[in-house]
Amino acid sequence: MNDDFKDIGAMIESKNSIYIVPHIMMDGDAMGSAAALCRALRKKKKTAWILTEDKIPDNLMFLDEGLTTDDAEKIESPDLCVLLDCGEESRYPKRKDAVAKSGKIICLDHHATSKAVFDMNHIDTEAAATGEIVYDLLCEMKVDMDKDIGEAIFAAITTDTGNFQYSNTTRRSHEIVAELYDLGIDHNKVSIEIYQSEPVEKIKLHGMVLGDIKIFGEGKAAIAKVTQDMLRKTGARMEDSEGLVSKLRDIKGVEIAALLKEQPDGEIKVTMRAKEYADVSKIAQKHNGGGHVKAAGCSLNCKTEEAQDIIENEICRELEDKRHNKYR
Amino acid sequence: MNDDFKDIGAMIESKNSIYIVPHIMMDGDAMGSAAALCRALRKKKKTAWILTEDKIPDNLMFLDEGLTTDDAEKIESPDLCVLLDCGEESRYPKRKDAVAKSGKIICLDHHATSKAVFDMNHIDTEAAATGEIVYDLLCEMKVDMDKDIGEAIFAAITTDTGNFQYSNTTRRSHEIVAELYDLGIDHNKVSIEIYQSEPVEKIKLHGMVLGDIKIFGEGKAAIAKVTQDMLRKTGARMEDSEGLVSKLRDIKGVEIAALLKEQPDGEIKVTMRAKEYADVSKIAQKHNGGGHVKAAGCSLNCKTEEAQDIIENEICRELEDKRHNKYR
Repeated sequence: MNDDFKDIGAMIESKNSIYIVPHIMMDGDAMGSAAALCRALRKKKKTAWILTEDKIPDNLMFLDEGLTTDDAEKIESPDLCVLLDCGEESRYPKRKDAVAKSGKIICLDHHATSKAVFDMNHIDTEAAATGEIVYDLLCEMKVDMDKDIGEAIFAAITTDTGNFQYSNTTRRSHEIVAELYDLGIDHNKVSIEIYQSEPVEKIKLHGMVLGDIKIFGEGKAAIAKVTQDMLRKTGARMEDSEGLVSKLRDIKGVEIAALLKEQPDGEIKVTMRAKEYADVSKIAQKHNGGGHVKAAGCSLNCKTEEAQDIIENEICRELEDKRHNKYR
Repeated sequence: MNDDFKDIGAMIESKNSIYIVPHIMMDGDAMGSAAALCRALRKKKKTAWILTEDKIPDNLMFLDEGLTTDDAEKIESPDLCVLLDCGEESRYPKRKDAVAKSGKIICLDHHATSKAVFDMNHIDTEAAATGEIVYDLLCEMKVDMDKDIGEAIFAAITTDTGNFQYSNTTRRSHEIVAELYDLGIDHNKVSIEIYQSEPVEKIKLHGMVLGDIKIFGEGKAAIAKVTQDMLRKTGARMEDSEGLVSKLRDIKGVEIAALLKEQPDGEIKVTMRAKEYADVSKIAQKHNGGGHVKAAGCSLNCKTEEAQDIIENEICRELEDKRHNKYR
């Protein structure tokens, strides 16, 4: 059962030193909603920090103006921890002690995998972004929102909705953004920061990977790989493979796209996307991974070629399965 | 002076056979706003056709369900012509007779280059898309809007705002889209049609081109080329180079991006983009081209290597010029 914003707001108001804990491998929603909440709490004269355990992606650094710390001792005994866009220990492994030592724990999330197991919880899978939940909470708490808070919420919503194109986008997403304009947000500046600041090495890596796509499953599937050798040749990092799997999915006729990422230790991380009707989370779960119906991932411990065979077979099976169900 | 929607609506109500004329080289806004208006007029039992003079782009074909014709005799003597997203004869050259023979002409547009010289005009440069103007007109006319009309308006707005990221996007853009959700639009389906139907040959071409970018001008400029040989190797068409120059501009630190396109006859078409402060229209004009400050192009009659030298020099000069002006 979800706690309502009034009760969550009251709990937050009663606390003074607060950690905000977004998930590892932060995306725009994690960082954006955390930045918005952190700024709001500081406006209310709370001691508030976003506690991180890994690097903030370069294109989200503009959201962090002295808001983050990776020092779990920054607050000696936090009254409260707010888990944001994140409801499982595996999403904050190195911060679990800091979370555990907090007086109370609130979880605000929109992932179906999060369970309402904390002191207070608001998990709304209908929200396109955790940023929407934070926005509604800040409204309820009558926070005097400003341009910076607005831009952080905009960053959260625009990234998690794929610029308002994904099926998770709702009427409410647009209503909230319309309201953010009243705060004077510079949505174009946010977009330039997030999308027009690509390292050239990343662009070169994308070029190399996209030059070598395999289409299979009667044109309904696409697969490509990022190897350590490609990273060496382009000077890119594995994080720069971000966005590639969507480009594979964007190919006409492709329903399932997969990207194989060869890790330094030889492990193969697999990222998958479905376009309209297939379920890639089924494939991921079979190999101890997870995710959503249309976006999921897993890891395989084998050679790249072997991993490719396994994943191609799984994809063909899923496509076959859906084909049968369609005509049933 | 703009005519108001009430008067424009009354004029439309009084007419029966109507041509809708969007600009040549249709984009999502031209086709989307035309489709919405055409469907609305037919709902009102008018004879209405979108009159075209060139091919509808593949990714916009889904908007045309028997709405378009390239036969200027389809309506013998049209009572009315509505110019959409288009206010200059150069934007409908082969249709100028059909427009001229229409009883009345209304111009609905958001381009600053359009002048209010027709029988009735509504030119609103604050509107992010002509689709927004059409939406407001249809509301005023109390058209019983449906899902199809809504999806056409969504297509218009989402493409002309760069998925709500460009600086032209306003609070109103989001408000309108929020209202479109009430019509039951499937925004994700529209996005899949527009953006997720890329020919695999195009993706491969992009890969090949992006794998060979040159960065120069102290990291502030990027240039790449598309040769006939690359088209042969990937099976792509020159139109598939669309979107490449934006990817060059999106590179961190890059202010000016240029793409050289080798035509079958050896001519080199140059497409340029600026990110924040440079003016690429200056370079284009010098070589008998044209465009906007941040998006312009021209043609050169020389070998690719020579063209590349010329353009690189021009870009360095423009960057140098802006550097001086900055510190003046």
